Parts: sequence; structure tokens; C-alpha cells
Amino acid sequence: VVIIGERINGMFRAVGQAIRDHDAEAIQKLARAQVAAGANYLDVNVGPAAAEPLEAMVWLVNAIQEATDAPLAIDSPKVEVIEAGLAACKNGAMINSTDARSAKLQPLMALAQKYDCPIIGLTMDDRGIPGDASGRAEMAMQIVAAAMETGVPTDRVYLDPLILPINCAQEGAGEVLEAIRQCKLLCDPPPKTVLGLSNVSQGSKYRELINRTYLIMALAAGLDAAIVDALDTELVNSMITAEMLLNKNIYCDDYIKAYLSM
Amino acid sequence: VVIIGERINGMFRAVGQAIRDHDAEAIQKLARAQVAAGANYLDVNVGPAAAEPLEAMVWLVNAIQEATDAPLAIDSPKVEVIEAGLAACKNGAMINSTDARSAKLQPLMALAQKYDCPIIGLTMDDRGIPGDASGRAEMAMQIVAAAMETGVPTDRVYLDPLILPINCAQEGAGEVLEAIRQCKLLCDPPPKTVLGLSNVSQGSKYRELINRTYLIMALAAGLDAAIVDALDTELVNSMITAEMLLNKNIYCDDYIKAYLSM
Repeated sequence: VVIIGERINGMFRAVGQAIRDHDAEAIQKLARAQVAAGANYLDVNVGPAAAEPLEAMVWLVNAIQEATDAPLAIDSPKVEVIEAGLAACKNGAMINSTDARSAKLQPLMALAQKYDCPIIGLTMDDRGIPGDASGRAEMAMQIVAAAMETGVPTDRVYLDPLILPINCAQEGAGEVLEAIRQCKLLCDPPPKTVLGLSNVSQGSKYRELINRTYLIMALAAGLDAAIVDALDTELVNSMITAEMLLNKNIYCDDYIKAYLSM
Repeated sequence: VVIIGERINGMFRAVGQAIRDHDAEAIQKLARAQVAAGANYLDVNVGPAAAEPLEAMVWLVNAIQEATDAPLAIDSPKVEVIEAGLAACKNGAMINSTDARSAKLQPLMALAQKYDCPIIGLTMDDRGIPGDASGRAEMAMQIVAAAMETGVPTDRVYLDPLILPINCAQEGAGEVLEAIRQCKLLCDPPPKTVLGLSNVSQGSKYRELINRTYLIMALAAGLDAAIVDALDTELVNSMITAEMLLNKNIYCDDYIKAYLSM
């Protein structure tokens, strides 16, 4: 599974402050820690507070790249901020994210083609997020169709069926597991699937327990990638264990250490 | 999910000693602790060391029933020991277990009918355990057919597709998940499924982590019951969380406490 570390996000108070202060060291510390903990990509989001989000994104990407060679998931609601981030990336990138609205889908798919990078596609449009699995899969098909039209290989599309907080949409969690299975059947080569995991436990009391339990179920349903708190050791250990049980990594007694030293 | 507490088993050294010493208090303590931790049934197995397994079983059942009203899963390789245990049960029982060999299947299914109790059926016969999911499902169908012939309702049959230690049969874990899904489709009303969970981690270093990770995946595949160490709090919390995420228990902030006080 591809682990996308979620921590460099201006939404977190300390990170927002570091971005405003141009405190590269604080950001770099977070970058190194996530990579050491197993993150394959680092999400990069300037957050809502940046006055000049485009400049902030470029500064953030450059700051991170001084600390690590990990590829970056460029995360913004604004197309131009994403493009500025992609242009600054030296070690590979991913677009986080488009959705099924044509105003975003066309320009962002074009960027995925131009920068030859994977792209996350959220299964929502102007009407919102479909309630059930098949509605989400339908939305996913629109994203996959746009990829095909633009010349982006379908296996570079990471479909995100959007898990909502369990405390307000309890039926949704099972639908999202089913959507993961359905998304894998949409085309050949099959698209990838991804979840912004932490959303499932938003506002809940047992956040870490809920996160890792849901991640394990999603992995068993075929999940390919997850945006997670890579510094949550129990979460990462659960993920490595699930992958081992699903026969994706060879068993050895110290399979956790073996995985992290790969 | 039905939790069957595994701890009263003569295979564990202290329990074997308590059985030999007729130390009812030690057994009763273990019975009460498992029920308090969420066990719905208590497994009762005199283990390999009992010189008179039939007498030991009756003593054990009576000792447990002085401490708790929980129903008991009468667990023995010997048909006559199982029948003696069933006859002594006052508060409900379950047979643990038959397999698909006719020498066991017929008499044990007859006991399930006579004592009107659920029965666990292991998907194995004289040739052993089939390697893949469909082989296990085929074996399961023989057990279900025997239930139908004997007049045991198919939804009182708990099919166990037999998880083997991950350190020697790594491909098996995924096959067992698939077997759980297939078993549910064999007839209507569908049979139940069960796993003797701890076997998955036999000989592994991270036993508890492997147990709870696999349990979560099995629950997502539709598992109905599990023979587990109910005193493993993290395991039980993971199970309760998985059930909540699968929308089987209503969410509340303290859903773990709510579940355990049901």
C-alpha cells in the first residue's frame, strides 16, 4: 500500500504557523519523521490560512525537498496552486485532488498528463457525494473516462470514494468498502483506490482505534493507498500486518522491521 | 459477533493443573473474567492431560455453572465427552466441533439435533484441509447437507474454514476470508461462520497484533463468531469497533462501553 503522510497541512495549527513564519526547520522535521515512519509520499497543503497560497506552496515544496527525496502529493482546492506545486517538484509528485466536476476534472487531468503524475479523483460532483457504493462508482467512472480521454493511464488514477465521519454517516463506511471493490472493476488496467482515512473518526472519541480498524477493513477490500498520520505507529503496524496477512509482503518473524527497512 | 472465550482449556498449563486438582475456584475466576470481558460463550476443553476426560468434562461444566449462566461451547475430539458435557449444561450449549468425516459428522449432528444446540463444523476430512476457498466451501457443503438431513436448522451450523498459522501457510489467510464469504452463500437461511482465531498467530512474534488485524478482516468478510482470548482487551475493542464500522451496533461516543454493558 502507498502511504501518503498527511501531517504537512496548514490546517494543523503548528504547521500553519510554520508556513506563515517560513520556519523551514519545523516543516523539514515533520517531513523526515514521516518518511522514517514509512510514508511513501508526503501530502503538502498550505491550508486555509495562507494569504498567498501559490507562493506558500512553492516555498513549502522547496523546504521539504531540502530534507527528503520523497515524492509529494500536491494538495489544494485551487488548480493554479496545484500547478505551481507540481512545477516545483523535483522527485515525483501526485495531484491531490480532482473530483467529477468538469470545471476541475478537465484542467487537473490535463496537469496529470503534462506532469506525467498520478492523480487522486474524489467521487463527488456539484450535487455532492452519492450515498451508496454504486453512486460512488458511477462518479468514479466519469473520472476514469476523463483520464482515458486525456491520455492518463487508468492505473495512475487513485479513486477516493470519500469516507465520511462515522459519527454522522454510519452506513457510509460499509458503502465505501463496497465502492473500493467496485472501483477496481471499472477498467483495465484497473484504477487504484485511496482514502483520506482520518475523516472516518472526525469528532469521535476513539480516533486512532477507529482509524486503524477501518484501514484494515479497507485494505482487505483492496485499497491501494491511504492518506494517513504516518506518525501513528500502531496504525502503520496494523497496515503492515494487514498487508502481510493478505500475502502482499513475505512473512518473517520481524515482518514489521523488514517492511520499514525496505 | 458471538465471542467464544477460549481460556478454559486444559491445554493451558495452569488450567490443566486446576482440572487435575479439582480447583474449582481457579476455573470460576477465569469464567467470570471472560464473561465480564464480553464473552458470549465459554469454550470448555479438558485438554490432553485429563486421565478421565468424560468425568473431567462433567466436573468442569458443573464448576463453571456455579460461577456464571453463560452458555458453554463443549469442546472435545471425543463424541462421548461432548455428549457428557452437553448433558450437564443447564444454560445452553454449543458443540465444538464436528468435521466433514462421516464417522464424526453423523453422531455429532444427531447430538446437535437432540440437544437443540448450535454446532461448529470444521472444513476438513480424512484427506486434511483443502488449500483453497472453494475446497473449503465444498467441505462446508457436506456439513450443511448433514445438518439438513438430521433436521438441524442450517443457521445453527457454524462453519469454521480453519485458519492455519500465518508463518507456515501465508496464502491461506486470504483463502479463508474468501471461504467465509462463500460459506454464507451455501444455503438459506445461511449458515454462520466461526474461526478459532489464535491459530493464525501460532509461533509468530506479534501474536496479539496479528490476531486482531485478522479478526477485523474476517469480520468485514462476514464472520459471525470467533473463538478468542476474551481477556485480550485490545482484541475485544478492535472487534467492537469493527462491528460499529460495519453498522451492526449503533454509534455513540462511548460505543465500547455501551457494547460491553449490553
